[in-house]
Amino acid sequence: MKRRDFVAGTGVAGILATGVAPAVRAQEAIRWRLASSFPKALDTIFGAAETFAARVNAASNGRLTISVHAGGELVPPFGVVDAIQQGTVEMSHTAPYYFFGKDPTFAMDCAIPFGLNSRQMTAWMYDGNGLKLFREFYADYNIVNFPMGNTGAQMGGWYRKEIKTLADIKGLKMRIGGFGGKVLERIGGVPQNIPGGEIYPALERGTLDAVEWVGPYDDLKLGFFKVAKNYYYPAWWEGGPQLSLYVSKKAYDALPNDLKNIVETAAAFAHNEMQAKYDARNPAALRELVKNGAKLFAMPKPIMDAAFKEATAYYSELSASNPRWQKIYADYSDFRRNVNQWFRFTESRFDSYMQGLKL
Amino acid sequence: MKRRDFVAGTGVAGILATGVAPAVRAQEAIRWRLASSFPKALDTIFGAAETFAARVNAASNGRLTISVHAGGELVPPFGVVDAIQQGTVEMSHTAPYYFFGKDPTFAMDCAIPFGLNSRQMTAWMYDGNGLKLFREFYADYNIVNFPMGNTGAQMGGWYRKEIKTLADIKGLKMRIGGFGGKVLERIGGVPQNIPGGEIYPALERGTLDAVEWVGPYDDLKLGFFKVAKNYYYPAWWEGGPQLSLYVSKKAYDALPNDLKNIVETAAAFAHNEMQAKYDARNPAALRELVKNGAKLFAMPKPIMDAAFKEATAYYSELSASNPRWQKIYADYSDFRRNVNQWFRFTESRFDSYMQGLKL
Repeated sequence: MKRRDFVAGTGVAGILATGVAPAVRAQEAIRWRLASSFPKALDTIFGAAETFAARVNAASNGRLTISVHAGGELVPPFGVVDAIQQGTVEMSHTAPYYFFGKDPTFAMDCAIPFGLNSRQMTAWMYDGNGLKLFREFYADYNIVNFPMGNTGAQMGGWYRKEIKTLADIKGLKMRIGGFGGKVLERIGGVPQNIPGGEIYPALERGTLDAVEWVGPYDDLKLGFFKVAKNYYYPAWWEGGPQLSLYVSKKAYDALPNDLKNIVETAAAFAHNEMQAKYDARNPAALRELVKNGAKLFAMPKPIMDAAFKEATAYYSELSASNPRWQKIYADYSDFRRNVNQWFRFTESRFDSYMQGLKL
Repeated sequence: MKRRDFVAGTGVAGILATGVAPAVRAQEAIRWRLASSFPKALDTIFGAAETFAARVNAASNGRLTISVHAGGELVPPFGVVDAIQQGTVEMSHTAPYYFFGKDPTFAMDCAIPFGLNSRQMTAWMYDGNGLKLFREFYADYNIVNFPMGNTGAQMGGWYRKEIKTLADIKGLKMRIGGFGGKVLERIGGVPQNIPGGEIYPALERGTLDAVEWVGPYDDLKLGFFKVAKNYYYPAWWEGGPQLSLYVSKKAYDALPNDLKNIVETAAAFAHNEMQAKYDARNPAALRELVKNGAKLFAMPKPIMDAAFKEATAYYSELSASNPRWQKIYADYSDFRRNVNQWFRFTESRFDSYMQGLKL
């Protein structure tokens, strides 16, 4: 309240001094920088931050202006948590599982193997305890988090050779994002961290045996189908990865209430829009991939089963050693059990009937 | 722009006259009324309008204040389209399929039998042609529409006797919402329109053979399980019913751009929150119902198949006779075919694996 009174007071002085009302607002505008962890080429993901910034700018009538910067432009893609802690930028749009090295708990704010799907994750955030628990967690990092985007269940990647049994995973050198690699390793795979631009040539010359990226819409652009035709589904490690908007807690707390509300609400709009874009654009991209020779395979159940067993064992180990993980995972896994028990009835039956029709 | 300049000008005068800045804004506040089609007892649905109004109020710093009124308080629940056309209220929150008597096309902005699921509907609206097509359609009714809430796939209702074959539908007197009754009729059922408060006694004394309402969270409160224990899934007529915020086009067009943006963005927040509430709250309600004797059954496939056949025939008849239906359904059905072709791979496989686990 005090801050607004101060602004209003200055405004009157400004009007009296210049006689031009619009200039007053421009003088008072707050300018923030948002560091995305993504390149502009991932237009659906990067675009969520642009949508968000445009909405905040319009809804605040320019009082809060946010400039959006691609990964690497201001800070390295994986340096955004540090950048917010240090006050280099006020905001970031990122995939929290990138930071599982700081604490594996980050991953639960995004995706863990055999986790929640997109709708379930939103439900846990908006009406379960997800947002509340992560607000507590992030307070230690000077971050206030907001759900902002989801890709939906990702594809399980491109493989140079067909995989049929667990033996085919042994020694498999695979580019895999974030936290999923921990479980891939436990079933015998060899997760690789390779910068985006080097993935295609590595796959082409066989330095990599497999690569997972996102899904048809993004994968088509990178052309993996030209060098590894076997396209598996689903990514058991990313059933509904959610992206987050990070806001510096110090900067956020200093905003007046109307701007706080505008930030939160604009993030919700971008959250919807990003999932909508993937759902609307993946179908045509999948058809295009198949037309170009991609061969679709279901991930073999024995591989899924082995991965699930290892994921569960890993989560138990984390719960025993990390109280932050333990606290949030207890709630997350309860929610997951309950929501899947419900989804298997009416949602699942409606969807499977529709998907079986000749439409 | 002109309007804002005028407001700013008055603001200066007000400040000079009174010396109290906050009072100026209050003088300029726009006050709108929102007529919900729902009772307060449907807290998840009615609550979406309350969430929306609170967000607009906070984000606009009180410049646009919306009072929310339950169905019947200002206008009858099904009178909201007329009320907006006549300028009685500026806004409504409703289920568009209530108005299929005016034009069956309304139903496609909500749910038609064997239509899009919740996420698919949002995708069609946000990134397909859905919103654009319905903006054109609603212009004739002085309405600007915004997606605002979805229940997810509903349950197929409570039946006094088990239904096993299509013969069990013949003559079945069933309370069923909106547009679905048209198809139920074509497979031999007798759809009944009965006000909410009279449903339970009619089911109890056998005037009704069956009733569909929403899903576990809402159904539990009405206690149907006490008089008709057979609970079927899914509602093939409501795979993802979307609610809409209607705004008077005349009133909306007169808003400055920042308030237009705030209205649209707040609707998106409420859209997320309502689906989240159903997804988070249905699981416990389903368990409670089963504990109280509800018996879960899958809707028999021959009944689904007969209903799908009749729905498709009905849509063809509508396309031949109603150019508004024809135009939008052509786009809707293309989208439905494509999006289901995609969802049957990675989304479906991830979900069915998770739902089959002992979690």
